[in-house]
Amino acid sequence: MYLSAAAIAAMENVRRPHFLTPSAVRYDRSLGDAAGLKNIGVHLNTIAPGDRATEFHAHHYEEECIYVLSGRGTAVIGDVRHRVGAGDFIGYPTDGIAHEMINDSDAPLVYLVIGQRLQQEIVDYPRIGKRMFRHGGERNVVNLADIEQSKR
Amino acid sequence: MYLSAAAIAAMENVRRPHFLTPSAVRYDRSLGDAAGLKNIGVHLNTIAPGDRATEFHAHHYEEECIYVLSGRGTAVIGDVRHRVGAGDFIGYPTDGIAHEMINDSDAPLVYLVIGQRLQQEIVDYPRIGKRMFRHGGERNVVNLADIEQSKR
Amino acid sequence: MYLSAAAIAAMENVRRPHFLTPSAVRYDRSLGDAAGLKNIGVHLNTIAPGDRATEFHAHHYEEECIYVLSGRGTAVIGDVRHRVGAGDFIGYPTDGIAHEMINDSDAPLVYLVIGQRLQQEIVDYPRIGKRMFRHGGERNVVNLADIEQSKR
Amino acid sequence: MYLSAAAIAAMENVRRPHFLTPSAVRYDRSLGDAAGLKNIGVHLNTIAPGDRATEFHAHHYEEECIYVLSGRGTAVIGDVRHRVGAGDFIGYPTDGIAHEMINDSDAPLVYLVIGQRLQQEIVDYPRIGKRMFRHGGERNVVNLADIEQSKR
Repeated sequence: MYLSAAAIAAMENVRRPHFLTPSAVRYDRSLGDAAGLKNIGVHLNTIAPGDRATEFHAHHYEEECIYVLSGRGTAVIGDVRHRVGAGDFIGYPTDGIAHEMINDSDAPLVYLVIGQRLQQEIVDYPRIGKRMFRHGGERNVVNLADIEQSKR
Repeated sequence: MYLSAAAIAAMENVRRPHFLTPSAVRYDRSLGDAAGLKNIGVHLNTIAPGDRATEFHAHHYEEECIYVLSGRGTAVIGDVRHRVGAGDFIGYPTDGIAHEMINDSDAPLVYLVIGQRLQQEIVDYPRIGKRMFRHGGERNVVNLADIEQSKR
Repeated sequence: MYLSAAAIAAMENVRRPHFLTPSAVRYDRSLGDAAGLKNIGVHLNTIAPGDRATEFHAHHYEEECIYVLSGRGTAVIGDVRHRVGAGDFIGYPTDGIAHEMINDSDAPLVYLVIGQRLQQEIVDYPRIGKRMFRHGGERNVVNLADIEQSKR
Repeated sequence: MYLSAAAIAAMENVRRPHFLTPSAVRYDRSLGDAAGLKNIGVHLNTIAPGDRATEFHAHHYEEECIYVLSGRGTAVIGDVRHRVGAGDFIGYPTDGIAHEMINDSDAPLVYLVIGQRLQQEIVDYPRIGKRMFRHGGERNVVNLADIEQSKR
């Protein structure tokens, strides 16, 4: 349950290209998994200069948040851009507004990203016109244009 | 909370063609809604002779069950067919096996159908090659062929 | 998944005195368990003449409902008494109103009782001044008088 | 959704004595609430020298974790004591092991504490022999000695 800063530094910093947009890359140490958490994901992430962490996305059900530890970058939230640095916090309620984190500085951007882990989740990727349904260990990706809306 | 048999008989018996396959028709009195239930659906359903209630389907998360009150018919469960009549019970665990109810008799088939109501649900329709994702009041229908599987 | 009326009749009809009030007795065939359901309880219950099924109780989170199959009795809902018979339905939303079912006739009262099965549940027994917290396979019963209310 | 470090510093640092043990005191800025999160609690907490944050406790369902930002202290996990400092992480799975955080240094101990927010929760306080059931805005505290265990 206890991970010292030294033990964390010794963990592999796993390179994670985004599964839909491999040019978006973050480096990840999953603190929560290492400590045995199942229902909250807690990741110590680093974005290298010039990179962005993920495809621009919005969660439908899982809340997510970020606490910046060091470096500088830009948090894009909907059509607003925030310059971020150490000690800043961003909460992402499930309000339909997409977001991404960019390192537009010349030094690593390091932050904690924390999120719920539900059994089912839906994530929208508005820039690439896709929706992902995650359930039971599967990720089902569909083009928004291929979804037939049926009113209940 | 209390609905007498007479009050139930006086409720409108709503004709409900299946939203994907309108030739599948059931008549529905939603007892649970009338009594104020939110998390369990309880429906008194009738299938007319020669009809089937729904498109052949499998729920991913919501358990469902049927208790037959009168009439005769056929419950199709995967590739097994059961003749059903008054007093029979069928439980549908979320095991991936699709099912449907058919009235192949010459009298109405009447049963209770009970199911969980979760915030999110996924239903497969293997005969027509579709999957439905229900969430937040939307039903998103996609062709199974249009789903890109992405391993986690 | 399929239980014929004959198979149901052949199931043991288990005598279940209420765990808090053993003089309240019902006979129980758990159809849902027999069919492999986990998240909905579906029970075919019988109350013998002169008995009542349970201690008078109110669920906090789990919705419950009853559909009467045969016999006559009295459903007590809060301070209202309803004469019930075949074809009547009672839904119990989680609204804080306690209820019980009594067989005050001279023949068996038979009904389906259906309820959610959540991981945690709280049930109040106002006549005997107790509250039960069910969680993780435990049932913790406390006297209402022993609960210290602490505002959040 | 975005809280700059300066905006966080300007938030009131609310003194929170523990509701059961008022001598345990932490200072709290609820970042998650300020950013509109509902299902995850994210708090920037400070323990003054010589204090401890809470009564020694174990959650039954809600996972919790801590990331230390500055200062030094002792995390007590069951009967193990860990010296903690900046960059350390502690995850508390719901495994029945109680924990507390103590500032036994001579400078403030500052950390993020993150936890699930479920509709119902149960927390044990083994040193003072109490259990708390939180539900629907209530906190019901009982002495462990007043709980009658009833096997299901």
